[in-house]
Amino acid sequence: MRTHKCGELNTKHLGEEVSLCGWVHRRRDHGGVIFIDLRDRTGLTQVVFDPDSPDTFAIAESVRSEYVLRVEGVVRPRPEGTINKNMETGEIEVLVKQVEVLNESETPPFPLESEIDVNEETRLRYRYIDLRRADMQKKMRVRRDVTRHLRHFLDEHEFYEIETPYLTKATPEGARDYIVPSRTHENAFFALPQSPQLYKQLLMISGMDRYYQVVRCFRDEDLRADRQPEFTQLDIETSFMNEDQIMELMEEMIRGLFAEILDVKLDDKFPVMTYQEAMNRYGSDRPDLRIPLELVDIADEMMEVDFKVFSGPAKDPNGRVVAMRVPNGSEMSRKEIDDLTKYVSIYGAKGLAYIKVNDRDAGVEGLQSPIVKFAPDEVWEKVLTKTGAQTGDLIFFGADKTHVVNESMGALRVKLGIDRNLLEGKWKPLWVVDFPMFEWDDKSQRWNAIHHPFTAPSCTIEELEANPGAALSRAYDLVLNGLEVGGGSIRINRTTMQHKVFRILGIDEQEAREKFGFLLDALKYGCPPHGGVAFGLDRLVMLMTGATSIRDVIAFPKTQTAACPLIDAPAMVNDAQLRELGIRLRKKAVKEEPKNS
Amino acid sequence: MRTHKCGELNTKHLGEEVSLCGWVHRRRDHGGVIFIDLRDRTGLTQVVFDPDSPDTFAIAESVRSEYVLRVEGVVRPRPEGTINKNMETGEIEVLVKQVEVLNESETPPFPLESEIDVNEETRLRYRYIDLRRADMQKKMRVRRDVTRHLRHFLDEHEFYEIETPYLTKATPEGARDYIVPSRTHENAFFALPQSPQLYKQLLMISGMDRYYQVVRCFRDEDLRADRQPEFTQLDIETSFMNEDQIMELMEEMIRGLFAEILDVKLDDKFPVMTYQEAMNRYGSDRPDLRIPLELVDIADEMMEVDFKVFSGPAKDPNGRVVAMRVPNGSEMSRKEIDDLTKYVSIYGAKGLAYIKVNDRDAGVEGLQSPIVKFAPDEVWEKVLTKTGAQTGDLIFFGADKTHVVNESMGALRVKLGIDRNLLEGKWKPLWVVDFPMFEWDDKSQRWNAIHHPFTAPSCTIEELEANPGAALSRAYDLVLNGLEVGGGSIRINRTTMQHKVFRILGIDEQEAREKFGFLLDALKYGCPPHGGVAFGLDRLVMLMTGATSIRDVIAFPKTQTAACPLIDAPAMVNDAQLRELGIRLRKKAVKEEPKNS
Repeated sequence: MRTHKCGELNTKHLGEEVSLCGWVHRRRDHGGVIFIDLRDRTGLTQVVFDPDSPDTFAIAESVRSEYVLRVEGVVRPRPEGTINKNMETGEIEVLVKQVEVLNESETPPFPLESEIDVNEETRLRYRYIDLRRADMQKKMRVRRDVTRHLRHFLDEHEFYEIETPYLTKATPEGARDYIVPSRTHENAFFALPQSPQLYKQLLMISGMDRYYQVVRCFRDEDLRADRQPEFTQLDIETSFMNEDQIMELMEEMIRGLFAEILDVKLDDKFPVMTYQEAMNRYGSDRPDLRIPLELVDIADEMMEVDFKVFSGPAKDPNGRVVAMRVPNGSEMSRKEIDDLTKYVSIYGAKGLAYIKVNDRDAGVEGLQSPIVKFAPDEVWEKVLTKTGAQTGDLIFFGADKTHVVNESMGALRVKLGIDRNLLEGKWKPLWVVDFPMFEWDDKSQRWNAIHHPFTAPSCTIEELEANPGAALSRAYDLVLNGLEVGGGSIRINRTTMQHKVFRILGIDEQEAREKFGFLLDALKYGCPPHGGVAFGLDRLVMLMTGATSIRDVIAFPKTQTAACPLIDAPAMVNDAQLRELGIRLRKKAVKEEPKNS
Repeated sequence: MRTHKCGELNTKHLGEEVSLCGWVHRRRDHGGVIFIDLRDRTGLTQVVFDPDSPDTFAIAESVRSEYVLRVEGVVRPRPEGTINKNMETGEIEVLVKQVEVLNESETPPFPLESEIDVNEETRLRYRYIDLRRADMQKKMRVRRDVTRHLRHFLDEHEFYEIETPYLTKATPEGARDYIVPSRTHENAFFALPQSPQLYKQLLMISGMDRYYQVVRCFRDEDLRADRQPEFTQLDIETSFMNEDQIMELMEEMIRGLFAEILDVKLDDKFPVMTYQEAMNRYGSDRPDLRIPLELVDIADEMMEVDFKVFSGPAKDPNGRVVAMRVPNGSEMSRKEIDDLTKYVSIYGAKGLAYIKVNDRDAGVEGLQSPIVKFAPDEVWEKVLTKTGAQTGDLIFFGADKTHVVNESMGALRVKLGIDRNLLEGKWKPLWVVDFPMFEWDDKSQRWNAIHHPFTAPSCTIEELEANPGAALSRAYDLVLNGLEVGGGSIRINRTTMQHKVFRILGIDEQEAREKFGFLLDALKYGCPPHGGVAFGLDRLVMLMTGATSIRDVIAFPKTQTAACPLIDAPAMVNDAQLRELGIRLRKKAVKEEPKNS
């Protein structure tokens, strides 16, 4: 149907007879001549209809935006003064000899110019129009390029792509499962996988050695801005490699990806930081290292002051007191500081103390703050020194239970970094390691797994048992610009250790058997040392395309209420189908047919 | 952990210090020395433990089958007479200096030798052992190679891999949908896709031009030997190509695939046959062309004979009378023919008439059959000529409604071809084209779509309306050795035609709107001419690996009752979860808690 694509013609094609297919992007009548920018996936070509050919001209007069055309014509140079250097094809045009309208179009519900903002609900309802926009075309292309690159790398490194089931059993990732009623097994349900975690471990036990999969995962979560009910994971597992080797290989993959797709050179060696250090310095286990702000512990200094807001948490073993210096922050207005106080309250902070350093050389005299009076001068001097404060800076303080300080001051740090334009560098990758195995849940009075219950500890089984709270895991997360883009661990490969971890998590023998009996069995038959990692592909592509939501890098995403306005899903199903599946609706059954349904 | 894989050592490595990781495949004690075949994904290496190193020797004495070891040692030539030419590594062995038991193993539930037959339920329950068998390892590797090759080809041809949703709405492929209750939308359900058909059409309308996806599809069917609740499709769609161009490109892909993976040269140009010719000659729209048997129509000859079994169907416009010559078939015993009669009765045939051609030169005198007496000599002479019968042949006859004749004689043809070892050639691809658009369903008294309702007809809208039964579609199926491995069509790209087809199928305006409103809308906004194809990846890999079931080329398949004995899915879920989803169990609600559940 076509000899060329709309984006590939240039002066090399001058004089050639070509045919193109595409959409009418723009039509202009100028000096009795009709110019149409014909568009396909590759770009635009200007095609020209001359009134000397009355048949084609009449057709050109009738076409409107988004009509689909096939044109035949000759490539010729654009006249002097009409050359468009911003267009790949801007030096040529095609003089049309034949035109065929392949299809007509009604006026699109919104204009295709990417810079015109359209309500997201409308974009999703007419996704097939939205996806025609240059910006969305580019995002889909980058997504394809990223996926190709990752596959290629893993293929080259002898990872086998192996498909695992989607109709499976509830997995322990912690979110709600989507379930699927079974017609052939009474009262039984499949679950859609939250990840192929256990299958990939089984593949290692199967001797598959190196596995990967670009795989859909499902979580029935309350949707936040950046979540989707189904999302795509690059899932990787390997035998006979330790965490350093896995991290090194994954770094190589990600470095190559950024070099090839974005022409960006990431660090030769990604920095590695322990969980503890990340929490101490940034209040977060996924710190955005582009932001030069840090939390500085001042509990020692505040222990004895006569200001309970500080001394209380300073003395509390579960409390924390920190200072965070904001360079040139003393210019902040009362209103700005009030807004930030409101902001940290979202994270449970009861207030936001601050000190403006108006003159560093004037000692405490140079400080401006309602709290200066609550502590002796030498304490403030120590705080100023510890934080490295300079004239013109502002210091924020956090004092509360450790998790409140970390969450509120960590969030404040990010907000200040972005709002005040403090970002240094464009791409800051970081490995976070040495996570605790467990965290104590006060509510349920038991240990929870920080990663998942198959993560190997770095200690012996005896040490684990003696002090679960002190045990570290062999897990590693890859953080990029403050987002966790990947995470993984070395897995438990011995039955005894797996049993022990289940027991610490309060999973008794019977429950372990019921839920994970197959894994416990499999571990008995020669399970190799193995570990792996999973990358959130949507999030990675979002970062790489500069998109603000993963919805923008998914062809057909769901809304924040987990619905698809395009095809109108989810939808009702008929009673006969429900009957065949052995289920009924709770609401309807009660209201409409209490007896005989 | 290792310097090499177990399958890659050879005489080039003599004298090198190497380390290997793998499973104990076999242990032999011979002359005071212990030999272990160490196995990984790549193969086996013989590692040798000498009693001169008492520490390693003691460990070697303790290991058993399927233990996981790490060994360090030196590559040396095997002694004269112990070289194994059948093994890649058969000229060398590794003298072990260090050994570490990475994990132990209980005795596996069945031996790993591929040639030992194991009950399939047991294989599936211990799939992680089954997948260690050389045969399964190879199948998984071929599957990976096939997928890689196909992806590579499509990437090279500028097809973009784009992911489509798994949580979607009921699609019209005809099988039962798996449904997924929604927690956030009352009484609403997602459906798992039977194929991404409408999404790929929407992608064409989005201007994506060329799309593909290796994608899971779901059908809640009554499982036959060769079906799975979830299966994998290579799904392809393109704009601006007609059926010949699509078929040519797909041929090129499949030819390249067989050349690269199997070193097999398929036909330079796959034969193309109309649906009508396939049904006439083979009684099937997916004929196995390796079988040289053909159906020959003899209705004209039988129209006037005094034998109602033949003359009835011969005169019936919905009837058919055929003869099928079986070369050298006259040797068949009464018993064999009785068995075949029973076989065709499965397909509704009321009997199986035959004639043995004992002496072709003796005219009717040379024929042996209970039915010879029912027709005049000149009729039989015509039948013998038409079928090309020779001395020693046997001719089977089918006479009934056309669909009964086609199904029974088509099945008989395949059975005879395989049982009597008549196959000619190893690989016989075939395109079947010119399918009817619709078939009349007597029961529901309406037209059904032979493909799906989005398939374009090759006639005008007026012709379609005037005579739906005569309309042909622009569909094409790729048949290989009697299996449909792929199928596709040019799609309808105009609203008027799509409406018309819905109407002929008895889908009224309202139903069309409800189910396919989004497609009807999308067709209005400049839908390009487009078409595509989908290949059954499991089936293709099954054919290419010589497997007898698709279960053997799927890592974790379901049984024929749609269950997974390994992880024990599907399984019960708790009441709280069902409550949250707004559903309840039908059985339980009635039996156990009729009021307050």
